[in-house]
Amino acid sequence: VDLVRADGRLLRLGHRTVKGVTGLDLTSLVIGSEGTLGVIVAATLKLRRLVPGEVRTLAATFPDVRAAATAAAAVTAAGIQPAIMELMDAASLAAAHALLSLAPPAAGTAQLTIQTDGPAASVEAEAISAVLADAGGTVVLAQDREEGERLLTVRRSMHPAMETLGHTLIEDVAVPRSALPAMFDEIARVEREHGVTIPTVAHAGDGNLHPNFVFPATPLADGTVEVPAHIWAAADDLFRSALRLGGTLTGEHGIGVLKRRWLADELGTDQWELQRDITRVFDPAGILNPGKVFTP
Amino acid sequence: VDLVRADGRLLRLGHRTVKGVTGLDLTSLVIGSEGTLGVIVAATLKLRRLVPGEVRTLAATFPDVRAAATAAAAVTAAGIQPAIMELMDAASLAAAHALLSLAPPAAGTAQLTIQTDGPAASVEAEAISAVLADAGGTVVLAQDREEGERLLTVRRSMHPAMETLGHTLIEDVAVPRSALPAMFDEIARVEREHGVTIPTVAHAGDGNLHPNFVFPATPLADGTVEVPAHIWAAADDLFRSALRLGGTLTGEHGIGVLKRRWLADELGTDQWELQRDITRVFDPAGILNPGKVFTP
Repeated sequence: VDLVRADGRLLRLGHRTVKGVTGLDLTSLVIGSEGTLGVIVAATLKLRRLVPGEVRTLAATFPDVRAAATAAAAVTAAGIQPAIMELMDAASLAAAHALLSLAPPAAGTAQLTIQTDGPAASVEAEAISAVLADAGGTVVLAQDREEGERLLTVRRSMHPAMETLGHTLIEDVAVPRSALPAMFDEIARVEREHGVTIPTVAHAGDGNLHPNFVFPATPLADGTVEVPAHIWAAADDLFRSALRLGGTLTGEHGIGVLKRRWLADELGTDQWELQRDITRVFDPAGILNPGKVFTP
Repeated sequence: VDLVRADGRLLRLGHRTVKGVTGLDLTSLVIGSEGTLGVIVAATLKLRRLVPGEVRTLAATFPDVRAAATAAAAVTAAGIQPAIMELMDAASLAAAHALLSLAPPAAGTAQLTIQTDGPAASVEAEAISAVLADAGGTVVLAQDREEGERLLTVRRSMHPAMETLGHTLIEDVAVPRSALPAMFDEIARVEREHGVTIPTVAHAGDGNLHPNFVFPATPLADGTVEVPAHIWAAADDLFRSALRLGGTLTGEHGIGVLKRRWLADELGTDQWELQRDITRVFDPAGILNPGKVFTP
């Protein structure tokens, strides 16, 4: 990573070698620092080769989201690592079916969509199918790539389908994979107690959930949409649930402005201050991405 | 990672989730920091499952080390990722054969020892055998686990074999894998110009070399052995060669005391100072592992 520091000096971080342990790992420190340590002006990426061979795709429906989440945790516990393992709760699945003009799923139905790849793709897809059936799922294993793509299209329609319901605040919590069923219980509780609808998809193989807080949109004069206070109250409740379950505020997308007020809840005050002090080593005057991440 | 800071406070770093991008990645910063940021009092490790199925092991000899290194780079370039790919140069191989009472290899002979695992182990072992044969290697593909273990024993005897030659300073440079042949040319040059013997093994799949600088041992009064100045002069030359080839001082083992005087040569003065300033955030009084890594 090539990083321009606050004083304008260019730093070249990292190694061109597969292994390298010289000094502190500043490359990892800079990745995900959201512009608080410098401006990244070049990055050299490690590429992975395409996995050779065919992929296998399957979908399984479950009577409720807890059963689907439990089945996803069972796949993980069985030691099989699919390339894709996506979970859609009932509200997401119903909205995607409606958007695609598919027959509506039975009330409460949740779905897992799974893909395997590599030389053991078929063996693993069969093993996963057995785990899901044992967990109460109704499994469809695609027989060719076209059928596989049709199964994936339902998941890929989630975000367009949400746009038909209203405006959404898309969240990004993650929990230990074994805690996925408990996290869905918490989402149901938050929906109930706050009177909001939270269709949720999850990268179930990672324990990373994207709850979509749906609300009617009233654009401001400049065309932007402000998230209403009662939605933030529900999100606050959900964030605290994820932290209680050993999880994190953000699996993928970072803190930015919207989550800076919860950052110390996850890090603790000591670590929050230490992280801010590290940003000051890079940027004593506080000119880099001001107001983001570490602003109290 | 649980880290006790210089002021005695305990920090809990990292996530219990598969993904998590909250704030700065202090876990990665602490890993490999050689005690300069705190005392690690607990670490939770991510485990990988045993790869199921059989392993396949093969060995290939080449007329010289450059040919062996070129063949290793060809395996990497072919996109096959073996579980093990170890290179022994002529001096290492001869010493290991002598220790094990095997017939001495032909003068100059270098060897690659390779293992594949996973569901494609046999397919990959055959593909690697073909690449090595094309590169001029004489390949033996073990037909069972016992034969595979016999092949690996030669590599595993490297360090005991070195002890029969004298005392050794074991080094740890790494270079981009495509630069492995050029690095072996540099080692031969350093041997010639400094009049020293440097038997070398390499984790060839990583481009990580362990040159063993051999010298007669004269223990000091306290039983320790001091590395003679002419050996350090040869090591200095070799470190600079690795850096010129885009490599690093240390692929695995760190800086400590012995390599601190070369650290700024790799990092540059700006980055060296920045890294030291980061250690001061954790340890303003400089009480953590004093004298190590960042001491000028």
